[in-house]
Amino acid sequence: MKAKAFEMIDIANRTEKPRDIGLTMVLDKGLGYRAAQDLMEYASEYIDIIKLGWGTHRLCSEEEVRRKIQLYTDNSILVSNGGTLFEIAYLQRKIDEFFEYAHQIGLSSVEISDGSIRISREERSEIIRKCKNMGFEVFTEVGKKDPLEDARLTIDYRIKEAKSDLDAGATKVIVEARESGKGIGVYDKEGKVKEDMVKKLTAGIGLKNIMFEAPEKSQQAYLILNLSPEVNLGNIKPEDVIPLETLRRGLRGDTLGKL
Amino acid sequence: MKAKAFEMIDIANRTEKPRDIGLTMVLDKGLGYRAAQDLMEYASEYIDIIKLGWGTHRLCSEEEVRRKIQLYTDNSILVSNGGTLFEIAYLQRKIDEFFEYAHQIGLSSVEISDGSIRISREERSEIIRKCKNMGFEVFTEVGKKDPLEDARLTIDYRIKEAKSDLDAGATKVIVEARESGKGIGVYDKEGKVKEDMVKKLTAGIGLKNIMFEAPEKSQQAYLILNLSPEVNLGNIKPEDVIPLETLRRGLRGDTLGKL
Amino acid sequence: MKAKAFEMIDIANRTEKPRDIGLTMVLDKGLGYRAAQDLMEYASEYIDIIKLGWGTHRLCSEEEVRRKIQLYTDNSILVSNGGTLFEIAYLQRKIDEFFEYAHQIGLSSVEISDGSIRISREERSEIIRKCKNMGFEVFTEVGKKDPLEDARLTIDYRIKEAKSDLDAGATKVIVEARESGKGIGVYDKEGKVKEDMVKKLTAGIGLKNIMFEAPEKSQQAYLILNLSPEVNLGNIKPEDVIPLETLRRGLRGDTLGKL
Repeated sequence: MKAKAFEMIDIANRTEKPRDIGLTMVLDKGLGYRAAQDLMEYASEYIDIIKLGWGTHRLCSEEEVRRKIQLYTDNSILVSNGGTLFEIAYLQRKIDEFFEYAHQIGLSSVEISDGSIRISREERSEIIRKCKNMGFEVFTEVGKKDPLEDARLTIDYRIKEAKSDLDAGATKVIVEARESGKGIGVYDKEGKVKEDMVKKLTAGIGLKNIMFEAPEKSQQAYLILNLSPEVNLGNIKPEDVIPLETLRRGLRGDTLGKL
Repeated sequence: MKAKAFEMIDIANRTEKPRDIGLTMVLDKGLGYRAAQDLMEYASEYIDIIKLGWGTHRLCSEEEVRRKIQLYTDNSILVSNGGTLFEIAYLQRKIDEFFEYAHQIGLSSVEISDGSIRISREERSEIIRKCKNMGFEVFTEVGKKDPLEDARLTIDYRIKEAKSDLDAGATKVIVEARESGKGIGVYDKEGKVKEDMVKKLTAGIGLKNIMFEAPEKSQQAYLILNLSPEVNLGNIKPEDVIPLETLRRGLRGDTLGKL
Repeated sequence: MKAKAFEMIDIANRTEKPRDIGLTMVLDKGLGYRAAQDLMEYASEYIDIIKLGWGTHRLCSEEEVRRKIQLYTDNSILVSNGGTLFEIAYLQRKIDEFFEYAHQIGLSSVEISDGSIRISREERSEIIRKCKNMGFEVFTEVGKKDPLEDARLTIDYRIKEAKSDLDAGATKVIVEARESGKGIGVYDKEGKVKEDMVKKLTAGIGLKNIMFEAPEKSQQAYLILNLSPEVNLGNIKPEDVIPLETLRRGLRGDTLGKL
């Protein structure tokens, strides 16, 4: 770790990479190589996983994608597919080919979700086990992309699904919030946190095992202040990695003196 | 066309560049050269036109602007002025000089609008014809920058204006939505689509001839699902080009299985 | 100054750098070096100060931060710490060390604030004088990060605080609006301008001496149209520097023909 600027300022400690808690997962929706280099130079220490969002990278040059995955990997960051891409592979009955390719192009991690499709719990567990055997870290997602469908999932259902995934070998279970963070999962239409739901999910699944997608600053600040500075957070925008880390360390007004 | 990542995933076909339908127009409000290079490496195939937004590039170094236009042109992308810059030239009685310079600096396309000024229909048609003769692709815009003024334009008026522009040689007619996409044209104050207005404009002008400015994802998804994956869309942010293309191809939850 | 594109278009003049009025202050929340280079090539003429926002740069590599400060300085831009970082140094009783380091790493300007802490007016003045003696330009900020606390500050209090800071040697007094520009200082919860408050603060402190943080376009346009194109504006996003300058110059629909 290189020397930081303004080191005379004491800041809150954090578990260091590779870590099992306090993970930050970034959403890459087609970041160019130069922007990725900038991100690595400034923020790689604060990023645990980068997700190639939904189907975006299906549209990008293989050579460019391979080169970017390599850059992230060289900076000790896990790289994962977007859940939607897995789901399309599933619909097209090509998951073996899909995981094989994921391995070959350099992904170290996979996301298994059913946001837009249906998979039985048994099959889901089997897929998780298969991916673990292939050497992937496995992140699973609970929740539906469609707000109406998502609203029908009970908290109990979500907890059972999560536990089943963890039993099968998943590293963490992600609570869906999409890129927007509004009207889905633990957020209402304005993006405000449903406090009771967060409490119950965390109690049922375990803080360490859960990752909340939290694209908005108010969501990040709430979860840090009410759960822990080391809550696992996902769908962070590249430009918000350092701002998020300042929240975790008490370097921003929202959490300064409150951690 | 280079090999893409995850090619085992089948995706919806699209007309390829250069194309007459399904155009994507990007708004460049002062993008730097490195960011433009990133954009070209990741997304040039999915961009048909880049508009140098309103008066932004009047403030930029000629050398830098020329270099960026060249980069875009090398990637088979039309480059256009912002309508507002044309309007100011018109107010200053300098449109001949303006178009001459546009040609000389490398623009392949021009935007003619009256969002902040008044021009008679005859003169407007004459300008369109002159630009066609100079070798420009011509895009015209219907709508006013001021929400109150814009609200006074009837649908019939917009259709007549559009037809007159097309008769004079315009390639497409753009429906104004500004950078924000709120409270103007076919969008209400929250940015929601006015469904009836979209239907009538499309019927009156023709899907192929119309380009909807649609800066928000919800707007893009609505127009793709309700009109066509090959609807012409404008004022797309550089970072949203690939996300938009995933909507057009069914690679995102919003349109997956619905196209 | 290099030749600009489209120079046949006449635009409103502005005081040129280095200037005492019409300042634009940009918020850097961890911009990478390539993005900073892009910004300099396109917009350095329109930037007077860059603030390394709140505690962000405490988390960045010293080498990278030093290199970026140098780049900004080479483009005749003042570089300042974020107020929150000063406040943490104050809480940790390390301000001498802090200012010494700021000087050594290349900051030409400092921001003194009490958004999250309490300092007596006497001590605040003393700190301002000390920083002036060290050769820094001093910007002070009036306002609290917490909306409830901020709402308790009267306009009279803010004016007195500002005058005291100016007497002690501050270059400008900044009116706090945070990164969001909502629910704080002169903006209501939706980010709309509190017109009466703006009028009174400007009358009491003097247009030249005040800098309004104004992250939203609607806020910038309001202040430009109602106060002056040469109002001092802060917390501008890097990608909004040129768009803001088009507002100041009448190159955008919002201010075209209205300056």
